[in-house]
Amino acid sequence: MPVKLRSPDPTHLLSVPGLRLGVASAGIKKPGRRDLTLLDVAAGAQVAAVFTQNRFCAAPVTLCKEHLARKGGIRALVINTGNANAGTGADGLARAQQTCEAAAGLLGCAPEQVLPFSTGVILEPLPAEKIVAALPAAQLDLREDNWHAAAHAIMTTDTVAKAVSRRVELGGRSVTITGMAKGSGMIHPNMATMLAFVATDAAIAPSLMQGLVREVADVSFNCVTVDGDTSTNDSFVLIATGQAGNAEVADAGGADYAALKETLAAVAIELAQAMARDGEGATKFMTITVESGRDRAECKQIAYAIARSPLVKTAFFASDPNLGRILAAIGYAGVMDLDVTRIKVWLGDVLVAENGGRAASYSEAAGAAVMQEAEITVRVALDRGAASATVWTCDFSYDYVKINAEYRT
Amino acid sequence: MPVKLRSPDPTHLLSVPGLRLGVASAGIKKPGRRDLTLLDVAAGAQVAAVFTQNRFCAAPVTLCKEHLARKGGIRALVINTGNANAGTGADGLARAQQTCEAAAGLLGCAPEQVLPFSTGVILEPLPAEKIVAALPAAQLDLREDNWHAAAHAIMTTDTVAKAVSRRVELGGRSVTITGMAKGSGMIHPNMATMLAFVATDAAIAPSLMQGLVREVADVSFNCVTVDGDTSTNDSFVLIATGQAGNAEVADAGGADYAALKETLAAVAIELAQAMARDGEGATKFMTITVESGRDRAECKQIAYAIARSPLVKTAFFASDPNLGRILAAIGYAGVMDLDVTRIKVWLGDVLVAENGGRAASYSEAAGAAVMQEAEITVRVALDRGAASATVWTCDFSYDYVKINAEYRT
Repeated sequence: MPVKLRSPDPTHLLSVPGLRLGVASAGIKKPGRRDLTLLDVAAGAQVAAVFTQNRFCAAPVTLCKEHLARKGGIRALVINTGNANAGTGADGLARAQQTCEAAAGLLGCAPEQVLPFSTGVILEPLPAEKIVAALPAAQLDLREDNWHAAAHAIMTTDTVAKAVSRRVELGGRSVTITGMAKGSGMIHPNMATMLAFVATDAAIAPSLMQGLVREVADVSFNCVTVDGDTSTNDSFVLIATGQAGNAEVADAGGADYAALKETLAAVAIELAQAMARDGEGATKFMTITVESGRDRAECKQIAYAIARSPLVKTAFFASDPNLGRILAAIGYAGVMDLDVTRIKVWLGDVLVAENGGRAASYSEAAGAAVMQEAEITVRVALDRGAASATVWTCDFSYDYVKINAEYRT
Repeated sequence: MPVKLRSPDPTHLLSVPGLRLGVASAGIKKPGRRDLTLLDVAAGAQVAAVFTQNRFCAAPVTLCKEHLARKGGIRALVINTGNANAGTGADGLARAQQTCEAAAGLLGCAPEQVLPFSTGVILEPLPAEKIVAALPAAQLDLREDNWHAAAHAIMTTDTVAKAVSRRVELGGRSVTITGMAKGSGMIHPNMATMLAFVATDAAIAPSLMQGLVREVADVSFNCVTVDGDTSTNDSFVLIATGQAGNAEVADAGGADYAALKETLAAVAIELAQAMARDGEGATKFMTITVESGRDRAECKQIAYAIARSPLVKTAFFASDPNLGRILAAIGYAGVMDLDVTRIKVWLGDVLVAENGGRAASYSEAAGAAVMQEAEITVRVALDRGAASATVWTCDFSYDYVKINAEYRT
C-alpha cells in the first residue's frame, strides 16, 4: 500500500510540445503487459542526463553516455521493463545497440541519436528481438498526450504510476514541465533502480543543461532511499524541446534559470518522494532532516544512517517509538567528532532526546501518538553549524521481504 | 532457527583458573529471568578490551574505558541484560557507577577495579537498584565451572547460548581458553550489539594485551554483520589470569604469542560466526570472501556491501539465485576504479559471473542447487592484487522484521 499516494489523474498531466510518447507490449517478462515505451523527441531539443555510479552499470547506461557524448542531438528514447540488461557484458551492449538501430530506422535518425533504458532483472540476456518486433506498435501509439500510459508502462514493482506536471512563467511565457518516474526498490542515491524522465518545452542554452540536471538530481532523486541498494540502471533524463517560445534561458545566475530550476526541482522532488511512498512494502513515509551541521555532507551522512537502518525502519513499521535506535544510527554514521551531548532529536514536534539522553519532557505516550501517523518527520539538530539535509524513506515491513524474496517467481 | 548451531555442551566448557562466574535474577526487564552475571577476577590478572566506535556509546562503555585507563588492575565484571544504559546521559553514568560500587563492596576491591556491561533496550534508565539488590545472589553463585549458566544469562534475542573452549600448548604447558558471547541483531562491526568475554589462564605481558585483543577482534568480531547496525554497547574483553604456569608470553614476534593468538582467534571466530548463525530470523549462514584485491580494506568494503544488502539477503532467504544483486552490490561498494570485466564471482563452487556478465558455463539449476544449502559461500575475485577479506552474515527473513518490530512488546 503506497503511503498517501494516488495514481496521477490523466487530465492533470500536461503535454509537452515537441515530445510524443508511445507504448506497446513486447512480452519481455510477461505476455500482454505493456513493457515498452518509445519517446519521440523533436529535432532541436536539448537532452541531458545523470546516471548511476554503480561500477556494474548496465549496458544501456554505457550506451546512453556514449550517445550523449557525441552531441549529435537526441531524437528518441527506448525504455523497456522486465529486463535490466545489466551484468550482461559485451553481448548486452550489442543487444542495446540493436534496439537503438531499430528505433532509428523507424524514426529516420541515426542510432547514436537514440538513448536506451532498461529496468528489471539483472544478469539475464535482453530479448532485443522482442523489443525490435514491438517498436512499430509503439511508434503507431505516439501521442503528445500519452504520459499517463507511459508512466504505467515503465513500472516494475511500483504499485502506483508516478507522473506530475507543473507550469512556470519564464519572461512572460508559460512553460510546461511534465515528468514521470519508476522505482520502488533497490533505491539509494547515485541513484536508485529508478528511471525518471522530465520534459519541458522551455528553451534553454545547451551549455546549461548538464549543470541543471545535476542540480535538480541532487535535491530530489539523490535524497531518497528505500533499502540502501544502488541500482545498475538508474537514469534521470531532462528533455527541453524549446518550443514554448520563451527567450532562451542562457544565464545560470538569472531569474529565469532560478524559476525553471525551482519548478523542475518541485517536479523531481514529488517524483522522488513518490518512490519512497511507494517503497516496496511501505506502510509509512519518513522525512529525515538533519540540521545545524558543519556542512551538508555530514548532515546527509547522518540522515542516511538513520534512513537506512533496518532497526529504525522495523520500529517505524511497528509504530514503536523505540527511539534509541535513532540515537544509535546517529552514533555510527561515521561523523567521528560528534558531541552527542549537544544533539537534539525530535519525532514530529515531540522533543525526544537532548543532553545525550532522553529529554526530560518526553513521554512514551507523546512518542507513540506521532508513531501512529502515516507520514512522520524525524529532525536532528547537531548544534555545530548552519548546514542541513533532508532524506526521504519508508519503513521496512514483512512485505518488503516478501516482495524481494519472491521477485523472480 | 539458528543455522547449524547448537547450545554448547556444558561438559565441553573448561574452567579458567583464576576466574569465577555467578548469575542471578535482578528482574530488570522480565521477572525471574537470570539477567545478571558477575565475574570475579583473581588478583594479578591482565584485562584488555575493545569497544564500540558508536558516538552514542553507552554509559558502561564510557566507565569501562575510564577504569581500564587507570591501570589499577581489574577484579570484577558486572553484566546485565534487559537494559543497555545507552542514550541515558549523566544519570546513566551515575547508575553504572552505582553498580560498580556495589560489586566492589561485596568483593573487597575499589569501584575503579570493576567493569560494567549492559545490553538491551536503549534510552531507558537502568534500574541500578535492582542490580545492586541481586549482586549478593550472584556472588553466592560464583564458581569456576559456571560458564554455561553465564553464557545463558548474557543472552537477549539470542536463541542459543554461545560459548567455546580450546586448549593450546605454550612452552610445554597446557593453557586453557574459554569464551562466551551474546548478540544476534544490531550486529555490524566496530562492533555489534555484542558482548564477548574470553578468558585464558595464560601468563602474558601486560604490554601485549591491548594489541592482542585488537588483533583478535579484527579477524573475528569485526568480520560479522547481521543488519549493518552498530550498537552503542559492543565490548570484547580479554582476561588473562596468568595461573597456567607458562613462561610469560612477552615477545609479540615469538612462537608462544603466535600460538596463543591463533587459538584465541579460533575461539573468537567461532563465537563471531555463532552470532551470524543465530542472527535474528536467520535461515542461512553466509560466508562472503573477496580475494585478489589491492588491499584488505577494499576487499572488506566489497564483502560488507554484499553482506549488508537487503536485496541480496532476501534473495538468499528465498533460496533464489538472483545473483545480479551480488554484482549490483559489488558495483556500488564504493571502489570506484573497479574493472568489472576482470571480476569473477562464485556461489559455492559454481562460477556465476565473469567478463562483466553471466559465466557461459553457469546454469540456473547449478545456482539453485547451491542455494538450497543452509551454509553458502560467495567468493569474489577482483584480479588486481593479493589481499583478501572474509565476512560472515545471515539472510534476511520475515522473522527479522517480526523480531525487530516486536522487540519492546
